[in-house]
Amino acid sequence: MGREGGRRQEDRREEILRAAFDVFAERGYHRASIATIAERVGLSQQGVLHYFPSKRLLLAEVLRLRDQRNFIELLGQGGALDLDTTANLVEYNTTQRGLVQSFTVLSAESVTEGHPARGFFEERYARSRQAFAEQIEEELGDRLPAGLTAEQAATLALAVMDGLQLQWLLDSTDGIDMPALFRAFLALLRSGGAESP
Amino acid sequence: MGREGGRRQEDRREEILRAAFDVFAERGYHRASIATIAERVGLSQQGVLHYFPSKRLLLAEVLRLRDQRNFIELLGQGGALDLDTTANLVEYNTTQRGLVQSFTVLSAESVTEGHPARGFFEERYARSRQAFAEQIEEELGDRLPAGLTAEQAATLALAVMDGLQLQWLLDSTDGIDMPALFRAFLALLRSGGAESP
Repeated sequence: MGREGGRRQEDRREEILRAAFDVFAERGYHRASIATIAERVGLSQQGVLHYFPSKRLLLAEVLRLRDQRNFIELLGQGGALDLDTTANLVEYNTTQRGLVQSFTVLSAESVTEGHPARGFFEERYARSRQAFAEQIEEELGDRLPAGLTAEQAATLALAVMDGLQLQWLLDSTDGIDMPALFRAFLALLRSGGAESP
Repeated sequence: MGREGGRRQEDRREEILRAAFDVFAERGYHRASIATIAERVGLSQQGVLHYFPSKRLLLAEVLRLRDQRNFIELLGQGGALDLDTTANLVEYNTTQRGLVQSFTVLSAESVTEGHPARGFFEERYARSRQAFAEQIEEELGDRLPAGLTAEQAATLALAVMDGLQLQWLLDSTDGIDMPALFRAFLALLRSGGAESP
């Protein structure tokens, strides 16, 4: 196959991943089907299975790609992402409802019996907590209020992100301002240093 | 049917609800089946459907009961539950893994297309935020740090609870101490008044 064919293969693969992403977001893993994904990209099921041999592998690739495009990879690269940038990414997420929904549904679903994404999420949270703690340590260090450790602050910050996403998805009144609320949480973390010189 | 028959009916209903609760927790709504629930209580599917005419109604009743037994009903009764008691309930939840898992999976799943629990969770979060805000207003009022409003603090507190549950469920190292972390968050909320007389 020539370079042109390789390019078309890449495009098609990308197209399948995008459709899979949407379908997982709309239905969760268990109700998503290769048939639905195939239909959206105008392929047969066999056509999709040529690129991704199983729904499980397709999910793994969707999750990997989602993180690659988002901030966790950055966080994992040794604190390249400061806290204000993290807040900007929370703001960016408000324009990415499908992505947020997909993540919320799949991460929660992954705690059920034998779910194929369980390992991915366990590892992802452990890694995110560590990277976040390092960043907080660097920016706020010994100025955290109420005797909070950087590890505790990191765990709470991730919890706030996830919990806000759920409330945002479940609010039809447009009353949950995720970026403002996340910034308010960061202000709480920073309030310990307000009295220091 | 005599009083004895009524009692047996009640017991059987209760037994089905417990089994349904477990099965929803293990599998989520969509993968849970009346057949599995029936098997666990030694009834036929028809037997279960005699008590609960559909899986959807069974879910609704499970969720209603879950809340009735837990603290949201208390919160809804006009701030009868103070913040320290809320922290004790977070501690209690660490002994109720199935319940926490059920809630995490179902609330996240409820954001997907046409999920039967969507309305329940939307309404539940709106009500919880309001009750929590009233309690925070009463206990901390104008002493919240970093310019936080009681509504913001309530939304963050609920987010922390949900987000910690997800991390706790996804941690196999026993490293997420939910009650300590929730109490640390309450200490953050209270740290604004530390310098005041």
